[in-house]
Amino acid sequence: MTSGGDAPGMNAAIRSVVRACAYYRTECVGIYRGYQGMIEGDFVTMTARSVNNIIHKGGTILKSARSKDFRTKEGRQKAYENLKEQEIDGLVVIGGDGSFTGGVVFNQEYDFPVVGIPGTIDNDIYGTSHTLGYDTALNTAMEAIDKIRDTASSHNRLFIVEVMGRDAGFIALNAGVGAGAEEILIPEENLGLDRMLESLKKSKRSGKSSSIVVVAEGDKSGKNVFELADYVEENLPEYEVRVSVLGHMQRGGSPSCFDRVLASRLGVKAVELLIDGRSNLMVGLQNNQVVATDLEKAIKGIQEINMELLRVSDIMTT
Amino acid sequence: MTSGGDAPGMNAAIRSVVRACAYYRTECVGIYRGYQGMIEGDFVTMTARSVNNIIHKGGTILKSARSKDFRTKEGRQKAYENLKEQEIDGLVVIGGDGSFTGGVVFNQEYDFPVVGIPGTIDNDIYGTSHTLGYDTALNTAMEAIDKIRDTASSHNRLFIVEVMGRDAGFIALNAGVGAGAEEILIPEENLGLDRMLESLKKSKRSGKSSSIVVVAEGDKSGKNVFELADYVEENLPEYEVRVSVLGHMQRGGSPSCFDRVLASRLGVKAVELLIDGRSNLMVGLQNNQVVATDLEKAIKGIQEINMELLRVSDIMTT
Amino acid sequence: MTSGGDAPGMNAAIRSVVRACAYYRTECVGIYRGYQGMIEGDFVTMTARSVNNIIHKGGTILKSARSKDFRTKEGRQKAYENLKEQEIDGLVVIGGDGSFTGGVVFNQEYDFPVVGIPGTIDNDIYGTSHTLGYDTALNTAMEAIDKIRDTASSHNRLFIVEVMGRDAGFIALNAGVGAGAEEILIPEENLGLDRMLESLKKSKRSGKSSSIVVVAEGDKSGKNVFELADYVEENLPEYEVRVSVLGHMQRGGSPSCFDRVLASRLGVKAVELLIDGRSNLMVGLQNNQVVATDLEKAIKGIQEINMELLRVSDIMTT
Amino acid sequence: MTSGGDAPGMNAAIRSVVRACAYYRTECVGIYRGYQGMIEGDFVTMTARSVNNIIHKGGTILKSARSKDFRTKEGRQKAYENLKEQEIDGLVVIGGDGSFTGGVVFNQEYDFPVVGIPGTIDNDIYGTSHTLGYDTALNTAMEAIDKIRDTASSHNRLFIVEVMGRDAGFIALNAGVGAGAEEILIPEENLGLDRMLESLKKSKRSGKSSSIVVVAEGDKSGKNVFELADYVEENLPEYEVRVSVLGHMQRGGSPSCFDRVLASRLGVKAVELLIDGRSNLMVGLQNNQVVATDLEKAIKGIQEINMELLRVSDIMTT
Repeated sequence: MTSGGDAPGMNAAIRSVVRACAYYRTECVGIYRGYQGMIEGDFVTMTARSVNNIIHKGGTILKSARSKDFRTKEGRQKAYENLKEQEIDGLVVIGGDGSFTGGVVFNQEYDFPVVGIPGTIDNDIYGTSHTLGYDTALNTAMEAIDKIRDTASSHNRLFIVEVMGRDAGFIALNAGVGAGAEEILIPEENLGLDRMLESLKKSKRSGKSSSIVVVAEGDKSGKNVFELADYVEENLPEYEVRVSVLGHMQRGGSPSCFDRVLASRLGVKAVELLIDGRSNLMVGLQNNQVVATDLEKAIKGIQEINMELLRVSDIMTT
Repeated sequence: MTSGGDAPGMNAAIRSVVRACAYYRTECVGIYRGYQGMIEGDFVTMTARSVNNIIHKGGTILKSARSKDFRTKEGRQKAYENLKEQEIDGLVVIGGDGSFTGGVVFNQEYDFPVVGIPGTIDNDIYGTSHTLGYDTALNTAMEAIDKIRDTASSHNRLFIVEVMGRDAGFIALNAGVGAGAEEILIPEENLGLDRMLESLKKSKRSGKSSSIVVVAEGDKSGKNVFELADYVEENLPEYEVRVSVLGHMQRGGSPSCFDRVLASRLGVKAVELLIDGRSNLMVGLQNNQVVATDLEKAIKGIQEINMELLRVSDIMTT
Repeated sequence: MTSGGDAPGMNAAIRSVVRACAYYRTECVGIYRGYQGMIEGDFVTMTARSVNNIIHKGGTILKSARSKDFRTKEGRQKAYENLKEQEIDGLVVIGGDGSFTGGVVFNQEYDFPVVGIPGTIDNDIYGTSHTLGYDTALNTAMEAIDKIRDTASSHNRLFIVEVMGRDAGFIALNAGVGAGAEEILIPEENLGLDRMLESLKKSKRSGKSSSIVVVAEGDKSGKNVFELADYVEENLPEYEVRVSVLGHMQRGGSPSCFDRVLASRLGVKAVELLIDGRSNLMVGLQNNQVVATDLEKAIKGIQEINMELLRVSDIMTT
Repeated sequence: MTSGGDAPGMNAAIRSVVRACAYYRTECVGIYRGYQGMIEGDFVTMTARSVNNIIHKGGTILKSARSKDFRTKEGRQKAYENLKEQEIDGLVVIGGDGSFTGGVVFNQEYDFPVVGIPGTIDNDIYGTSHTLGYDTALNTAMEAIDKIRDTASSHNRLFIVEVMGRDAGFIALNAGVGAGAEEILIPEENLGLDRMLESLKKSKRSGKSSSIVVVAEGDKSGKNVFELADYVEENLPEYEVRVSVLGHMQRGGSPSCFDRVLASRLGVKAVELLIDGRSNLMVGLQNNQVVATDLEKAIKGIQEINMELLRVSDIMTT
């Protein structure tokens, strides 16, 4: 099943899980709409051929949803009964923290084997250097900012661009460095707006005529992007400021090669773990190797942002 | 010069004007920042080599700006003096209606030869079937909506997507049809919101689980996209609605083949008209031929939206 | 049915035909693998929902094939019987010249209503300014050449790039102008290789360090691209020459907005013509209007290349 | 300097080196055309502003070349004199194995500080998990194969696609897995052509109608791609086979976010090492951290292909 917010590469992961099952001569059943579909018995038998021609597709053919019912004991009971009726012996959950938490609770109550595959564009999951969809989202965001820079530099304007990342600045920091942004505001580091003004002032003095400020959704400066724009215009009248909120397009699109390969690797490992009788694990990438992390650790741990890259970002905008 | 809002293909047009001048052994001077640069004497001599490797670039290397000063007699006087001092005998203005109006006034006052090249993503200029940048913007908007559809259909959501077009629905209609949108709201046709609700209700009944509504900035429904979203959620509680405003990224990006070829053709024609002693004309495309239209007609005329395509759009969402 | 070489936009045309049938409450049957599937009775009933989510896909979900059997009387007889058995009353053929010829013969023999939709990347069909897939192929070829130019200009090399177009230079000319090629060789104009050498020599003298020569498959210079490369290296030892044959990737990819909109318009018109009892027509685009051309005229006529663009191309490489 | 084959991300690395120098108040001089430009004294002073707007560009603004002269003692002597005359105290070489070897020899002879940045699309350098340009090339190759698959599956054909990689199968293996190829032939693993035929036969029997075989340039099967195609057609007459050689477009294009960020990180580190008085090192990525490897080790070591991914590839094509 896929659960929570969708991410590019989820289909590639579904394909990999299904094909690995076929390889190990294990039957495979897809569950539509995550835990909600599990409760409603929305199942589909999947064979190697059902996943032809989906590796390159964004979104998820199994659809996703958030499920209130699964938070109730009754909901989980119903889900368990459905799984048993289908003779399902193990569960692969492709999703993020919230989806994994559901899996852990379910495992505790019914001793049902669960393995998680980290799928979210935000990269905010402990135990894997990259989550599925993250690399694609970086490229999507960066390419959009590349386009915005064309018009910014034609008009000597400053653009404040909001990218996704409610709790984590991975997209903002990496897409910002990749797009050559002058300033990057992320939740993990709140240096105050004065510092940003100072830096923009300096940038103007040094002859730069246009600027891009990339802001993560979850930035802690206390102002949303529109308020930020007003604030800059008030304090730096030499700038004409525009705002762009990139929004949901960052969740879609054909996955990058990195995400497709990662999905293929993680899907195989998830199936192999279940076949080996293991449970409560998340498969992930560490040092370019596929590894398994305790699922609870993955939920509780915090993926740290790369401080060296923050410093590189400062040096790049000297 | 390039003037007004920037558009992909402006650099290809600059390159074409410069190369055509070189071909006809005519000196060519670039003017930075449109009419404002003309007033401030911000000129640069351009040779065939100064436009190497710009055909594929978004934005405009000559930059663009709106000029208040050019609306004053003093400003235009200063601009005229600068042109004379530079021994400039004719002006190619790449821009939209507003920029052409400036050119007409200038021509009336100083009898200075002016030829316009229509450059704006909105395609709202009479006398040419396509403006520079329009084809590129269509693809940019459509590809963004393609990405949004991935996430819309994974979550059974309705997305309201705002595209550019303050007075004209060309981008909304074409990108909407191209992206397979369920509804398209444009300034040229206000059928009322009841019709949209009816159509979305029908779409839901027929089993469609996700929908895209494309709205032009300048839509006349009386509600902005966020109000529209609230309105739909109130009236159709079966829908979970999200909003995405594509914004300025639609102005940037590498021009499509169509726009680069069009720019190359129009640039040559503009130079040839000036060399032939003609003035007050806009070059454009009609029936795939390069033609000249009286500049005042181009300003006053209205590019009509294609009613057949509106009908096709309805049929596609049956 | 789709027939002959595939082209981006064929799926969008299938979708349009199916949806238009639904709109006019007419049953619609898809035929797999063109005329061959017609002979083998490879049919599928199609409803508005069978064409969900295909507008953006390259290739054709109905597959395509060339059919030797349809060239025999027996083959066509069998095909006719299958159509009658399915109670099919009219045929929409999406394809090129060869496919239309089959349709004309079939119509003559069985008085069976046939309407053609021009689908081929080559744009070599009379009666329409644009064939389906042509605009997409231009962008695909041009973007590949943009990438090649990166490495050409890093190494001061000359690249000879072969693009598709066995009998027609439309792709070579337009993608070549769009990519800023120094020389373009097309079947319609054979100026001799001496002229190309002269031009490359001049280009080198004027300080250009890298060059791109775009050659159509069907070029009449008498040398293939590898022989051309040898010829240039022998005669201009100052150049280091590389060859790239873009090949079949030019046939694939997600269709451009232009192709998707065109497909939507042509599909509707094709269905409306059949419903109106008309036959032996090809729908196409002329002066941005959808028009019908006699199918035999479309086959016999020759789409002329734009001589003005050839001239523009020369001026651009001054 | 940039040296050897160009790769996307080289410009981002140049920008990073220049900006890091500016940050550390160190003068920076660019050398054109690698070692050849060093011998010919082709230098340019670079400031933070000279690298504006290059982070997204393919190729290298400093150009690249292979230098025979640098293999001679006289050539290196001249190069050394030029560096001294320019008061250059350290050298950053962006390139591959061959370029690093030149650097090591130069360092041995003149005790001149040298730091290497691995820039090549082939990823065949020991000491870094990723070379600059590799991630971009993977996406370029994969997207081209995605397009080819459109036409392959429309026509039930088999395509043999050659990708770059003379000695290493990294591109073939990863782009092949990413594009869902049925077979992947790489230099590191020669399982014989019989196995490929067997696998294709099985694939056909299981109902697959089209297939993609990805072959690295340096494949050791003893046949080039055209011979391979003949061989398959002879042995599996049920297949219609086509060949596509992706060629030099794989070297170009705007770098991916991964490559731009990697380039930014490596450039800073290279400058910091030189400023710290270190030499004979290559900066690279290991476990997502920037590390330095002894330059000679980097040259002699062999980057091993990921055997787990080979296995995943087999499972995916079950």
